[in-house]
Amino acid sequence: MPRATADLLTPALLVDVDRARRNLARMQEYCTGHRLALRPHVKTHKLPLFAREQLARGAAGITCQKLGEAEVMVDAGCDDILLSYEVVGERNLLRLGALARRCRLATIADSRAVVDGLAWAAARAGVDLPVLVDGDAGYGRTGIAAPHDAVALAEAVASTPGLRFAGLFTYPTLSGTRDWLRQALQGLARSGLAAPVVSSGGTPGALATHEVPEITELRVGTYIYNDRTMVRRGAAAPEDCALSVLATVISAHAADRVILDAGSKALTSDLVQHEAALGHGDVLGYPGALVGRLYEEHAVCDMRACAALPRVGDRVRVVPNHACAAVNLYDEVALVRGDEVLDILPVAARGRSR
Amino acid sequence: MPRATADLLTPALLVDVDRARRNLARMQEYCTGHRLALRPHVKTHKLPLFAREQLARGAAGITCQKLGEAEVMVDAGCDDILLSYEVVGERNLLRLGALARRCRLATIADSRAVVDGLAWAAARAGVDLPVLVDGDAGYGRTGIAAPHDAVALAEAVASTPGLRFAGLFTYPTLSGTRDWLRQALQGLARSGLAAPVVSSGGTPGALATHEVPEITELRVGTYIYNDRTMVRRGAAAPEDCALSVLATVISAHAADRVILDAGSKALTSDLVQHEAALGHGDVLGYPGALVGRLYEEHAVCDMRACAALPRVGDRVRVVPNHACAAVNLYDEVALVRGDEVLDILPVAARGRSR
Repeated sequence: MPRATADLLTPALLVDVDRARRNLARMQEYCTGHRLALRPHVKTHKLPLFAREQLARGAAGITCQKLGEAEVMVDAGCDDILLSYEVVGERNLLRLGALARRCRLATIADSRAVVDGLAWAAARAGVDLPVLVDGDAGYGRTGIAAPHDAVALAEAVASTPGLRFAGLFTYPTLSGTRDWLRQALQGLARSGLAAPVVSSGGTPGALATHEVPEITELRVGTYIYNDRTMVRRGAAAPEDCALSVLATVISAHAADRVILDAGSKALTSDLVQHEAALGHGDVLGYPGALVGRLYEEHAVCDMRACAALPRVGDRVRVVPNHACAAVNLYDEVALVRGDEVLDILPVAARGRSR
Repeated sequence: MPRATADLLTPALLVDVDRARRNLARMQEYCTGHRLALRPHVKTHKLPLFAREQLARGAAGITCQKLGEAEVMVDAGCDDILLSYEVVGERNLLRLGALARRCRLATIADSRAVVDGLAWAAARAGVDLPVLVDGDAGYGRTGIAAPHDAVALAEAVASTPGLRFAGLFTYPTLSGTRDWLRQALQGLARSGLAAPVVSSGGTPGALATHEVPEITELRVGTYIYNDRTMVRRGAAAPEDCALSVLATVISAHAADRVILDAGSKALTSDLVQHEAALGHGDVLGYPGALVGRLYEEHAVCDMRACAALPRVGDRVRVVPNHACAAVNLYDEVALVRGDEVLDILPVAARGRSR
């Protein structure tokens, strides 16, 4: 195994373990201090190592987006999982049932169609399945927009054999979330239903979660690594970024640009939302460098604002726009402290989008 | 193995083999008709099966972008490879030398630094390494902008033990490419250097390559599958698109949108260039559907322009914006004919960005 980052082939995914652990500790401390259950989302790191570490630090369980991620994490010993995704289709429902026999598993629903499938899965597997009702306070993705419709689905869950109504679920925490939750909770109370869990998520607004006291559980993923988006949104400082892509300068003709060997297949094309013009990553050590154009295997860095340019063969670290998406491109990740490589781990849940 | 697409878990990567083979045949026919050597780029499909098929149909050899791709293809029996990338760094140069002992391998250079490295690699491996000089006719990525500088580098290559000047390389074919090539070729002639190969590439303009008669070799990758970008640029018809992502509707609340289980981790965030507002894919069977917002594992499809909406559990095929990037997300690909699954292949060179 390479002992130093200089020995790694590039592009390589690096995790500064001290930064990552500091980020883990801070979020757990916040949640503990505010009596919030922390349920970290593993979609960001996709690593059993960090899932287990999050649990050891006090997390109530983990969150997985897809069944494939959950299967990897159960195999790795995680025993309390919220599958934060509407599960649809017979083969997936059989997988869900099998997982529910191996761990404490809860999931979500936003329609009768999904509830009916979950009931079938629970019956087939012979399990009682906790189901949170997915509410949408304005994001416009999944989830039920009208609180009274969410209450109606909760009633349907509660009255379905094999299913147990386990609470409310929403994402992310928006300005309208508190109103939405209060209306839904009032409706549930009128129906005689308790919501043991009220789960919300998202790293950018995580540290304001206590301002919505109805929320009992926080789901966050990106916080372990952070990324350029979090920095630009003011949700993290540059020194909180634990993830970077090590890249090599392969061409440096012009006085104003260099070409790196890390393109969209190493950084992803994800943009910082609402900032489409502002580049694809931060080049550490070169403030003002703009990763202006990405091709599949090339990044063209505009260096006009930089005092000095790296040369062919030099290596730089690039903090990507979106940690979760970048991680999903790599079969392995190097855990580093400075330039020392401490370990190289397979990204066990990479590509587990199904 | 699943026999029908209905049995596949989603998101799943599908290749319509008949369309892919028709695309392969057409491009080979074009090249044969115009006496152009076809050197297909495997970065798109990343599959030994199609690389071998491209060779069997008459390709002069294949193109690989990264050493890792070339290693996979040599292992699969491909024996004539152009590595269309500036190779930098001692470990990479050793890999290059090892490859050059196993197949006919040529590569490119756009600087003395790269040439010096290649010379070291050739000496270490005890091989003669053909090197094309990388010229830039206006793209602004790698390559030498001034033809006379390219000639100077060609002279350096020609006079370096272990290296052989093999010709000129450029990407893509631009309006200025012919002028650039003529000037470079005249300069080479004055230096007494022949350019046995003049290689250019890019699917969008491929069928106009004969209009630049200086070009002797065409490198194209995307043509095997095509994608939404090719269709929007007029370089392919919808029925030429061989690649799609099979996705399932998981939520369908609103009258104007549905949510698919295929997000940026299934389609990539690559946009059609210069059309940032125009979505992330074409939903087959739903003309007017706009894949307007992508999250990691969700696509929000605006269906306002559609006569009827799919329902929860329904499956749709989405033609992605960029085939090459989408393929790189999947560990396996299903070869299909209609709804029949003919085979499922590992995407052998997936993630080989180093």
